[in-house]
Amino acid sequence: MVKYLFEQIVDLSHELDNGMPAYPGDTPTSLQATATLAKDGMNLTKVTLSSHAGTHIDAPSHFIENGITIDQIPARFFVGEAVVVDVSDIPIGSGIPVEEITRKTRQQEIKRDDIVLFFTRCSELWSDPRVEKNFTFLSEAAAKYLVSKEVRAVGIDSFSVDSFDSTNFEAHKELLGGGLFIIESIGSTLKQFLGTRILLICPPLKFASRDGAPCRCLAVPMS
Amino acid sequence: MVKYLFEQIVDLSHELDNGMPAYPGDTPTSLQATATLAKDGMNLTKVTLSSHAGTHIDAPSHFIENGITIDQIPARFFVGEAVVVDVSDIPIGSGIPVEEITRKTRQQEIKRDDIVLFFTRCSELWSDPRVEKNFTFLSEAAAKYLVSKEVRAVGIDSFSVDSFDSTNFEAHKELLGGGLFIIESIGSTLKQFLGTRILLICPPLKFASRDGAPCRCLAVPMS
Repeated sequence: MVKYLFEQIVDLSHELDNGMPAYPGDTPTSLQATATLAKDGMNLTKVTLSSHAGTHIDAPSHFIENGITIDQIPARFFVGEAVVVDVSDIPIGSGIPVEEITRKTRQQEIKRDDIVLFFTRCSELWSDPRVEKNFTFLSEAAAKYLVSKEVRAVGIDSFSVDSFDSTNFEAHKELLGGGLFIIESIGSTLKQFLGTRILLICPPLKFASRDGAPCRCLAVPMS
Repeated sequence: MVKYLFEQIVDLSHELDNGMPAYPGDTPTSLQATATLAKDGMNLTKVTLSSHAGTHIDAPSHFIENGITIDQIPARFFVGEAVVVDVSDIPIGSGIPVEEITRKTRQQEIKRDDIVLFFTRCSELWSDPRVEKNFTFLSEAAAKYLVSKEVRAVGIDSFSVDSFDSTNFEAHKELLGGGLFIIESIGSTLKQFLGTRILLICPPLKFASRDGAPCRCLAVPMS
């Protein structure tokens, strides 16, 4: 029987802070004190952010007409087994080819209902302006392949599953249209799980009738 | 060996929405579309909320000078075993006496490092203005007792562990000063776990150097 090593949980989430990286054009994250210990006897914060700030979940309604919203994804879907696929040897800014996935998962089976996480190494360049508009993404063929494998969700440690120059957002539409959800901007701590299977915990905030939400993303090692 | 029933996860979180209940005086929650499928080919949302909106975690720095902030609480602390204590028979708006806790937990041991969750039934009146300033809270003695039991965290399904009229915030200061974290505004779905032990998953957003953050709060039944 599988054993979950909760004591060894690793945080895969980026911090949310003023001035943090954001997808160009999207709402910047802002955190401001509205009360302080010195003046008010307690600390309180007002936060402004995008539904796609930092490590976050895309719900089908982000791109799909009548797609389900973030609050409609069953909560149990955010806890599940994940395979971590190392695609860090393909050039930054390119689309992950389907052959790269089949080659890398030869010894690491992708099962039905799995969450599939890609380590592109863009997360190691998180604050580097050179990856802001030039990050690794999923090819349309790769997205179609993952839908055909009947996985539950796809995650990536870059800004988006589509290239910055994309106008049709093929990968988003394939995945979300196929009923999957997407995890974007996973942190670089994902690197320590390359080629392994983990229990992923990634529950987003429950924004009513919305297209996505930031999440805390945790890796539970299994033995 | 304990078995976690991940397929039967129950969501304990309130929805975050425009017009939702908020602690009087705190930042109201606002969700606004910044892009729509019809006009822009995708849906995006700008969100404004308090670090204590909806179901959320209080970090020690909410009330304690030099207390650790929400991002400094180790991520593994947000996944742990919880006992669910039914205090719904004490009057709404009163402080939970320590005797109520010891009486209720006679058959339900509180262990070191447990998370202790209180069901006051205020969550069943979540949108009722009558509980906005008159909700059940923790007596100072109860807070001291929980600290003495060396539990990891305390959760409640009302707005706060201190009464609305409190000026000294004794329960917050006892718990947070004792190194515990607090979960407030847990949803009414907690009711189905009265008197049982569950695996609680409650990871908050990772706001840098801040006093608290909204969380998604999930109950995993155990067998």
